[in-house]
Amino acid sequence: MKPIIFALPGNESLAKNIANAIHAEEGQVIIREFPDGETYIRVLSDVKNRKIVLVCTLIDPNKKMLPLYFLSKTIKSLGAMSVCLVTPYLSYMRQDKVFISGEGVTSEYFASLISGFVDKLITIDPHLHRRKNMNEIYTIPSEILHTSLLISSYIRKHIKDPILIGPDVESKQWVSVIAEKANAPFIILEKTRHGDKNVSVTFPSIEKFKDHTPVLVDDIISTARTMIETVKHLKKTNMKPPVCIGVHAVFSDNSYESLKDSGVGQIITCNTIEHESNKIDITKLIAKKL
Amino acid sequence: MKPIIFALPGNESLAKNIANAIHAEEGQVIIREFPDGETYIRVLSDVKNRKIVLVCTLIDPNKKMLPLYFLSKTIKSLGAMSVCLVTPYLSYMRQDKVFISGEGVTSEYFASLISGFVDKLITIDPHLHRRKNMNEIYTIPSEILHTSLLISSYIRKHIKDPILIGPDVESKQWVSVIAEKANAPFIILEKTRHGDKNVSVTFPSIEKFKDHTPVLVDDIISTARTMIETVKHLKKTNMKPPVCIGVHAVFSDNSYESLKDSGVGQIITCNTIEHESNKIDITKLIAKKL
Repeated sequence: MKPIIFALPGNESLAKNIANAIHAEEGQVIIREFPDGETYIRVLSDVKNRKIVLVCTLIDPNKKMLPLYFLSKTIKSLGAMSVCLVTPYLSYMRQDKVFISGEGVTSEYFASLISGFVDKLITIDPHLHRRKNMNEIYTIPSEILHTSLLISSYIRKHIKDPILIGPDVESKQWVSVIAEKANAPFIILEKTRHGDKNVSVTFPSIEKFKDHTPVLVDDIISTARTMIETVKHLKKTNMKPPVCIGVHAVFSDNSYESLKDSGVGQIITCNTIEHESNKIDITKLIAKKL
Repeated sequence: MKPIIFALPGNESLAKNIANAIHAEEGQVIIREFPDGETYIRVLSDVKNRKIVLVCTLIDPNKKMLPLYFLSKTIKSLGAMSVCLVTPYLSYMRQDKVFISGEGVTSEYFASLISGFVDKLITIDPHLHRRKNMNEIYTIPSEILHTSLLISSYIRKHIKDPILIGPDVESKQWVSVIAEKANAPFIILEKTRHGDKNVSVTFPSIEKFKDHTPVLVDDIISTARTMIETVKHLKKTNMKPPVCIGVHAVFSDNSYESLKDSGVGQIITCNTIEHESNKIDITKLIAKKL
C-alpha cells in the first residue's frame, strides 16, 4: 500500500508533486496558530496502519520544530504504521564539534530530537563535513539522496563549454563528480572563513579556460559571500558572466539580491528550499525512494 | 551551593532579579542566530557539578523550544548536576484532550518533550483546566507557584471597596481565594466560547455593589475578549471603571490596546511575561523555591 504524503506548512507544492509522481494520497491536515502563537493540529486523513511521509524542508528550523513534532505525534497517536520525514534541506549540520570550549554540538542534539519522533529520514545532500555518514548522529535509519546527476544533466543541457568551479577543498569530491558527468573540466578554490559572513578565496590560474563559461557550484548558498567573492575575481579575467548553481537556496538576508547584483549570468538552485531561483526539480529523486 | 541562574533571550531582567534575590551567580552564555536562522550556543560559566536554573517564560513557544533545548543539552554535556526550568508562563496547557477526532493533544506532547531534557520544572498558575496536577502529563518533578496572595495583597493596598469578578465557573475556586484574602466580595460570570476570539458572558445582578470598584481577574489575558465583553456590561451599570488583573499578560495581536480603549480604569498583570502592564512582581515567589 502506498504511503500518505503530508505537507508541513510551506511544503505543499513539493508534497503534491511527490504524491502525484507515485500516485499516492495527499494527507489532509489542519495546522493553524492560536492567537497566542501556539499550534493547533488536526489530522483529517485516516492514517491507521498506513505508512506516512511528512514533507518538511528545515530551513529556518526553530519555528518549524514543534509543528513537525506535534504532527508526527498526532499521526502516531492515530495508529499509523510508520512516519518517514522527507526533509530536502536538513538544518543543524554545521556545528558538528566543539570548536571553542562551552559550545553546544547542536547537530547531535538536533539529530537526537528528530530521531525521537520519526522512524526514518530522507534528505538531500546534507552538509556532512566532518562526519562520514548520518548514522554517526541519527539513531533512526536515514537515506541520503544526491543531486549531482541532476546538476550535471542541467549543465550538459543548458551551458556551453562549462568550467566548473568548487569553492573549497571540501567541495572537490562532489564537484569532480558533477564535472565528470557533465563532461567538463573543473578547478577548486581555497576558501578562508573569517566569520559567519566574511570569507576570502584564493584563485588558481584559469587562463586556459578563457572561452569557457564559469559554473560555480556549492551545496548551500547562504550568505553567498564565497560566490560573490569568486564572481569578483572572475570579472577581472574577462570570462563570460558565471552561472551559480547551488543545491540549497538558503539565501540569508539580502544575499540573493547581492549575488544577482555581483555580475553573475544566472543563479540556479534545486527546489529543496522553495525559491525563485529553483530550476532543478528534485521530485523524482525523492519519489523513487518512496 | 547556590544554583547558577541562566536567562534565555528575553528573560534577562527576571533572571537577574532572581539571582540578586538569592545572591546567586548569573550564568554567562552566548546565544545567537547564524545568518540562516540556526541557533549558536556557548556556555561561558563553569557549570560542572552545579545546580542550574534556566529562566524561560514560554509565551510564543515555537521559536523558543530549540534554543531552550540546546542550552539544557549543552549545560548537561558540560557536567552540570541538574537543570531546573523556571517557566513563569507555561504554554501548551489548553489542548488537553481530543475535542474532535484527529486532534493532537499538544499539552501531552509538549510535556513529554520538556520532560526529556530538563530535570525539574517550576511554573506559575498554569492553566490546568481539566487536569488536576502537572504530573498527569509531566514525568519530571514540577512545582506550581500561585500568585493569589500577591494579587490579593495588591488589591488590598491599591483598590478601595473592590468587588472581584471571575470570568467563568472555572475561575471560581481561584477568585474566591483572592477575594477572601483581599477581604472583598466576588461574583462569577458565565462564559460561552464561540471560537478562539469570540466569547459572550452572562451577567448576574450587581446592584448592591454599585459603589464598589469592579476588579476583573483572570489567569491568562490573551485575546482579552472576555474582559472587554465584561467591561461593556459594567459600563451600563454606572459603576466605577473596572480594574483588570491578569496573571499572564499574553495579549495576542492588538488585544492590549482594545482592552485599554474599552473603558477600563487600569490593567494590572504579574511579570510572568514581560509587558508594560506588569505591576505585581513574582521574583520573590520564585526565589523562595530555589
